[in-house]
Amino acid sequence: MTLTLSNLAKAVIDSQYAVRGPIVARAQELERTGRKIIYCNIGNPQALGQKPLTYVRQVLALTEWPELASKAPEAFPEDILATAKTIMTESKSGLGAYSESKGLKFVRKAIAEFIQERDSDEALAVKADPEHIYLTDGASKGVQTALRCVIASDRDGVMVPTPQYPLYSAAITLYGGVQVGYYLDEASGWSLSRGMLDEAYAKARKEGTKVKAICVINPGNPTGSVLSRDNIAMVIGFAKEHGLSVLADEVYQKNTYRAEDRFTSFARVLTELGEKEVSLFSFHSCSKGYLGECGQRGGYMEVRNLAEDVIAQITKLQSIALCSNLPGQVLVYLLVRPPRPGDQSYELFISERDGVIDALKRRAALLAEGLDSIPGYSCQPITGAMYAFPTITLPAGRNDDEYCLALLEKTGICVIPGSGFGQLPGTAHFRTTILPPLEQIEEVVSKIREFHLSWR
Amino acid sequence: MTLTLSNLAKAVIDSQYAVRGPIVARAQELERTGRKIIYCNIGNPQALGQKPLTYVRQVLALTEWPELASKAPEAFPEDILATAKTIMTESKSGLGAYSESKGLKFVRKAIAEFIQERDSDEALAVKADPEHIYLTDGASKGVQTALRCVIASDRDGVMVPTPQYPLYSAAITLYGGVQVGYYLDEASGWSLSRGMLDEAYAKARKEGTKVKAICVINPGNPTGSVLSRDNIAMVIGFAKEHGLSVLADEVYQKNTYRAEDRFTSFARVLTELGEKEVSLFSFHSCSKGYLGECGQRGGYMEVRNLAEDVIAQITKLQSIALCSNLPGQVLVYLLVRPPRPGDQSYELFISERDGVIDALKRRAALLAEGLDSIPGYSCQPITGAMYAFPTITLPAGRNDDEYCLALLEKTGICVIPGSGFGQLPGTAHFRTTILPPLEQIEEVVSKIREFHLSWR
Repeated sequence: MTLTLSNLAKAVIDSQYAVRGPIVARAQELERTGRKIIYCNIGNPQALGQKPLTYVRQVLALTEWPELASKAPEAFPEDILATAKTIMTESKSGLGAYSESKGLKFVRKAIAEFIQERDSDEALAVKADPEHIYLTDGASKGVQTALRCVIASDRDGVMVPTPQYPLYSAAITLYGGVQVGYYLDEASGWSLSRGMLDEAYAKARKEGTKVKAICVINPGNPTGSVLSRDNIAMVIGFAKEHGLSVLADEVYQKNTYRAEDRFTSFARVLTELGEKEVSLFSFHSCSKGYLGECGQRGGYMEVRNLAEDVIAQITKLQSIALCSNLPGQVLVYLLVRPPRPGDQSYELFISERDGVIDALKRRAALLAEGLDSIPGYSCQPITGAMYAFPTITLPAGRNDDEYCLALLEKTGICVIPGSGFGQLPGTAHFRTTILPPLEQIEEVVSKIREFHLSWR
Repeated sequence: MTLTLSNLAKAVIDSQYAVRGPIVARAQELERTGRKIIYCNIGNPQALGQKPLTYVRQVLALTEWPELASKAPEAFPEDILATAKTIMTESKSGLGAYSESKGLKFVRKAIAEFIQERDSDEALAVKADPEHIYLTDGASKGVQTALRCVIASDRDGVMVPTPQYPLYSAAITLYGGVQVGYYLDEASGWSLSRGMLDEAYAKARKEGTKVKAICVINPGNPTGSVLSRDNIAMVIGFAKEHGLSVLADEVYQKNTYRAEDRFTSFARVLTELGEKEVSLFSFHSCSKGYLGECGQRGGYMEVRNLAEDVIAQITKLQSIALCSNLPGQVLVYLLVRPPRPGDQSYELFISERDGVIDALKRRAALLAEGLDSIPGYSCQPITGAMYAFPTITLPAGRNDDEYCLALLEKTGICVIPGSGFGQLPGTAHFRTTILPPLEQIEEVVSKIREFHLSWR
């Protein structure tokens, strides 16, 4: 055949994406033979029974088929009919036409207002510009765009946490850059320290790598930790000192589970510091938080401290695939403009939203405590995001790849080995989501316990 | 700032995408000042008033908000309710969950059946395999995936027609390959000849380029021509002789306007020839044809003559952005499974479908004849796709970039210069869509005529 493994692009072959890797393929194989599989490999809430929020789906239905507003008005609350009408008017041609490459202007305006409202308080006004916002097919495509811009040669490095979300390592490999891992400190709740950044940076420089950017995932994936304001300021200072751009993955900003772990954005701290040098890309998504609309691929990227000529290059890059999908763009609008007090659908929205967040909070606690109680396991509290990443003690000579495969074969539970995310040499972990229904979480923990105690 | 034009990836800076380039930016600027712009730059039917087909939007509304089926059943025909129910059952979690990386299995099965039905006749059974089909966000993302796999080094070349659709040149630049242009013969209706392929190939080899693949756009963009079965067989023979893979862009397969120009697929001819060596990627989309659903980003890629290990690499590459958007996947299902005779919505489907195709046919004829009648213009008949690409005679020393900009400033008509698609040195063209409403087409032609006669 004319295209074979031997003449296929090496960057494609070298890239790895563990959360959809061999272990998931094996799980699907087992499922086809009739085995019951509990998919804890990926943050895909609706696949595990989470219900979509009603207001979101009502508006999407009305914008997909606008005649519904006259055919069945009684099926919809008034504010929903009004929102759908606004979207149809503002978008001009509805969901069927390509939008501007950056995305629909009124959606970008709403995002800018959302950022301003989220990040400002009496002491500080944070501004946002709709022209510095790009609608993307999920956050993943935004991250790929940013990395594509930053990696200019095969000696260019990008700092990513260890452990990290494998989208980063895969995209860096695809674009021919160098992954520069910095460790997070598990013992102190996966915190991020200046010492670890300095160490990773120095090692990379010594190896001839030109470090161009640093990626931070906050709240953390797979670690579940939430960064403090001071931690973020430290990262920005570090980036400034070394002339790095910052990629801030903030898709779990609504997934925080303790009052003391309030989400702080990089945009806010950048403004606070009056920082004008450090270029920032930040990412948000409709796939996580309380929406969990993974399949609809809605997301956005906001950029700061970039000159107009660079903005123009990013816009051109986006234009090559024309625009992100319009239902996803509408979904982002609904993410940043949920029903407001006084709206007919407000109460239902609040009860559905709180129901989702509350359930996640209870599962996070139950899972972290359950795993931590298994002899040979140590699991940090899950204060944000949707994952646990416990340390496991394995018999000498065995690794987490074998362990997770055996766990799958024995119990039907599909988790991803720590090797797919990165970890300190000599340690072993896996990542599991907190997404199975509450009653299944106890089953998961007890099956893992039983498996662990017998595995050799 | 830490990210500047001087340290941005050169491949990004070098890539060009004319159909959303500077002339469109200028048109948007003019529009903001209150000027009326007729956007003929891009095949975006619904932005120019084409209505979405009812059955498509009804099913999308029902799958976005499944409760509608019980809240307002009277608003929907029975077959539509049944189709929506099938989609909800087969997808398991509806539109809100990530699907498999390749896309929903039942959609891929329906596509395989569609291909078999489209390409088989009494004399020949064409087979298709759901595992060799990938759902993509529009065809653009599929094309990018294929090119990403094929281009393995900066000496690897990809043959593309001149003129071509600039997605190809942009993606080849982004992935660091070499664009090898082969000319289409304007005088014989933009036909494709073995001589032109040989010439381009020999020139590339002489320059040290290793040609890896050939792209063919059929029906042609921007040329509007339809390839014959023998032409396709010739391309496959050429590819085999030189060990090339084939990328067949078949997104305009439903846009043919004369009985003698029936669309023939590369899959069909490959099967007819019993060809097992030439790897084939073919692309289809919901954005063109009679659906014109550009904004929803639905499309698919089918591959043939690839070994399982290569298929696995493509699947991994797709998995890095998880999956294409689910509303778009549903749309592809509806593209390949429209209402059937006997269904309650069949008649409306047929009348809407034929209305769209008939209107396109009339505009194609009106526009081609109108442009061809302008002194100094020569326009080939538009037998397929959505574009005219006339030759224009310009005063000595002037080029089509200046011409199109002046046309925009003077008349508000936004077309794309031939330079953005490629053309024989010394010639000048532009691409215009055939999409403005019929009554506007006459206005467009007469404004262009008036402009042309006065421009110096």
